[in-house]
Amino acid sequence: MDLHRYIADMGERAKGASRQTAILQGKTKDAMLRSMADEIMVRSDEIQAANAADLEAARESGLSKAMIDRLSLDAACISSMAEGLGAIAALPDPVGEEISKTVRPNGLQIARVRVPIGVICVIYESRPNVTADTAALCLKAGSALILRGGKEAVESNRAIAKAIVEGGRLEGLPQDAIQLVETTDRDAVRELVQLEGRVDLVIPRGGESLVRAVAEQARVPVIKHYKGVCHTYVDESADTAMALAIAENAKCQRPGVCNAMETLLVHKAIAPALLPRLAERLASHGVHLKGCPATRAILPDIDEASEADWSEEYLDLVLSIKVVDSAADAIRHINRYGSGHSDAIVAGDEGVQRMFTQRIDSAAVYVNASTRFTDGGEFGMGAEIGISTDKIHARGPMGLEGLTTYKYIVQGSGQIR
Amino acid sequence: MDLHRYIADMGERAKGASRQTAILQGKTKDAMLRSMADEIMVRSDEIQAANAADLEAARESGLSKAMIDRLSLDAACISSMAEGLGAIAALPDPVGEEISKTVRPNGLQIARVRVPIGVICVIYESRPNVTADTAALCLKAGSALILRGGKEAVESNRAIAKAIVEGGRLEGLPQDAIQLVETTDRDAVRELVQLEGRVDLVIPRGGESLVRAVAEQARVPVIKHYKGVCHTYVDESADTAMALAIAENAKCQRPGVCNAMETLLVHKAIAPALLPRLAERLASHGVHLKGCPATRAILPDIDEASEADWSEEYLDLVLSIKVVDSAADAIRHINRYGSGHSDAIVAGDEGVQRMFTQRIDSAAVYVNASTRFTDGGEFGMGAEIGISTDKIHARGPMGLEGLTTYKYIVQGSGQIR
Repeated sequence: MDLHRYIADMGERAKGASRQTAILQGKTKDAMLRSMADEIMVRSDEIQAANAADLEAARESGLSKAMIDRLSLDAACISSMAEGLGAIAALPDPVGEEISKTVRPNGLQIARVRVPIGVICVIYESRPNVTADTAALCLKAGSALILRGGKEAVESNRAIAKAIVEGGRLEGLPQDAIQLVETTDRDAVRELVQLEGRVDLVIPRGGESLVRAVAEQARVPVIKHYKGVCHTYVDESADTAMALAIAENAKCQRPGVCNAMETLLVHKAIAPALLPRLAERLASHGVHLKGCPATRAILPDIDEASEADWSEEYLDLVLSIKVVDSAADAIRHINRYGSGHSDAIVAGDEGVQRMFTQRIDSAAVYVNASTRFTDGGEFGMGAEIGISTDKIHARGPMGLEGLTTYKYIVQGSGQIR
Repeated sequence: MDLHRYIADMGERAKGASRQTAILQGKTKDAMLRSMADEIMVRSDEIQAANAADLEAARESGLSKAMIDRLSLDAACISSMAEGLGAIAALPDPVGEEISKTVRPNGLQIARVRVPIGVICVIYESRPNVTADTAALCLKAGSALILRGGKEAVESNRAIAKAIVEGGRLEGLPQDAIQLVETTDRDAVRELVQLEGRVDLVIPRGGESLVRAVAEQARVPVIKHYKGVCHTYVDESADTAMALAIAENAKCQRPGVCNAMETLLVHKAIAPALLPRLAERLASHGVHLKGCPATRAILPDIDEASEADWSEEYLDLVLSIKVVDSAADAIRHINRYGSGHSDAIVAGDEGVQRMFTQRIDSAAVYVNASTRFTDGGEFGMGAEIGISTDKIHARGPMGLEGLTTYKYIVQGSGQIR
């Protein structure tokens, strides 16, 4: 197969399809989404059989247990995938919304209107449910989609994509509106992200090495979803009970996700009272602690944190702890070592809260709450395609609005310059 | 000089400065801008002397007359540069605006607040007044700036940057908030656009080859300002007098800019009546016409348009003309050959107008008006850093709002998940 030709042709067809998806009525898109959901349920056994083939190959190639867990689809997973499509169908149509309108002194009426992006390419790893979510969000946002999933999930993704496309087509989904890259050739990614004029946006969803490879090769715009090195800073003005509850939740409720806390910063004035109680509480969850010298002066049994720990996304029951001299110190640490994802302060002092929210350069900045809330659903967006750590276009949870752009529609009556 | 080290260091210092520019009060930034304007006026002779040195070098190296015109700065240009800074000072501060606020069922208050991007890098050619405009817009938007101008304007840019920095410092402009790359080494561009984690956004302003080189080398987000292949489509329902006035204006009022018309599309039913009158009108401006076979059946004396003409940005008194069978045909032509910049329809039929505005995939879509209005000033933005032909983040005229991003500030009272 001529890979360059195959991918270029896919891009060309997606661009053509995007002219049609862009002008679909909201209710038509919703009918397509519901039909996709039905088709996924009808083909549940078929999807599970495909998934079983992927799982067998994964075991043979010695994939880790965690990877295999991420790959597995049981009947309940498939139902929840179908429910997810129904939930996206129930959201309001973002396309066509008038964002603003002004009338200029010369009589020109300038409206800024939300419109689809065109062709979106999503490159992802492992979890096959991403196939369904992503297809639904992009269609609802009026764009055509090219999906490139991980090698491990190739059979599962193919079965899900087939169900989605066939379900959609029962309600008139345009040909080529949703395409799955069928080859597992790694070079396909490079070809995709260089399709200038055909692909309008690339979203890599996966580990840091995937995101980095895409960013390095891309010629078209990319919205990156890098890691979450999230912090909680406990100020001297904090309510201790609140600080303990928030720290425990941010670290332990689901340690393997990007909005979980990786580093705790504690003001030196509150550290002696807080840290022993915190250590006890986290010990009950089996959290492994690493600390700076001042932390270890209070908790002598814990490991020493190295310089590398401050930038580490553990995604596990591990926490690094640092005692700081001031809120300003905490802010400097977070802006230096953080990943611009989600960071929290626990404080009673409103001046300190304000300084923190103003100066922390992250997508989501929390006062007296757990960083675990950075999520499209929790933010009221209904669904998300991911959490952007870029500052351009979409920052933080990226929902339907982040999957659209705008254009200016200017109504005149013969105006010239 | 170690170029890699020099640029990396510049990025590091810009990142540090951006922490300070981000929290400047609006009135402080405005005082800095007015002080910069004063300093430019005070140093007008010095800037003109530097410009004279650039002009001499340009003549020696045989630069075209058009290039030399773009490079020249007289006292009037310098005054208008200073006035431009004053006008930006008078605009409202975009930073800190609350874009939206919601209260979630769990009591979390989620505010989306407009904040600076951080470090912006602008890479530009020729016109030295860009140095002042860009510095003012980026500072007002709360970001630190790295400027990289063209080799031809190196002395002029240095003199302007010096006036700006010294004027700003009188009012407390942070060190390194505005830096100019001093070397003319071409590799500096590559180093700049690969400064991940330090440069947050790159904006190339210049010819297509510059923009393309930046897009190819960049590892950080880029907002591209490509060419404008702008169309006017005259529907069969058009008012002929209006169509003639709009076409004349879009082509002739300032042919060398990106929002000037390059191709006229005419419905076959109106072409026999319109084209001879149009040809006469454009002849008075000396416009060179090129047409498709159907156009040449009506205007037999004009040149034949080749396939390449339909994608050409002439930036000159040249116009390609095509007769189309329908509005749908015109739309297909524009979406295929256009550059997504600005396109207009002249039509009386509201159904056709609607079809056109909905289906044309361009930053600005006009009904019964000249494409020449695509401009930050004309759109009421006050000033612009350019016209984005990208769909991501900022589309069309890019003003202060396009130079900002947002973050979520979440106020809680101890919420955990």
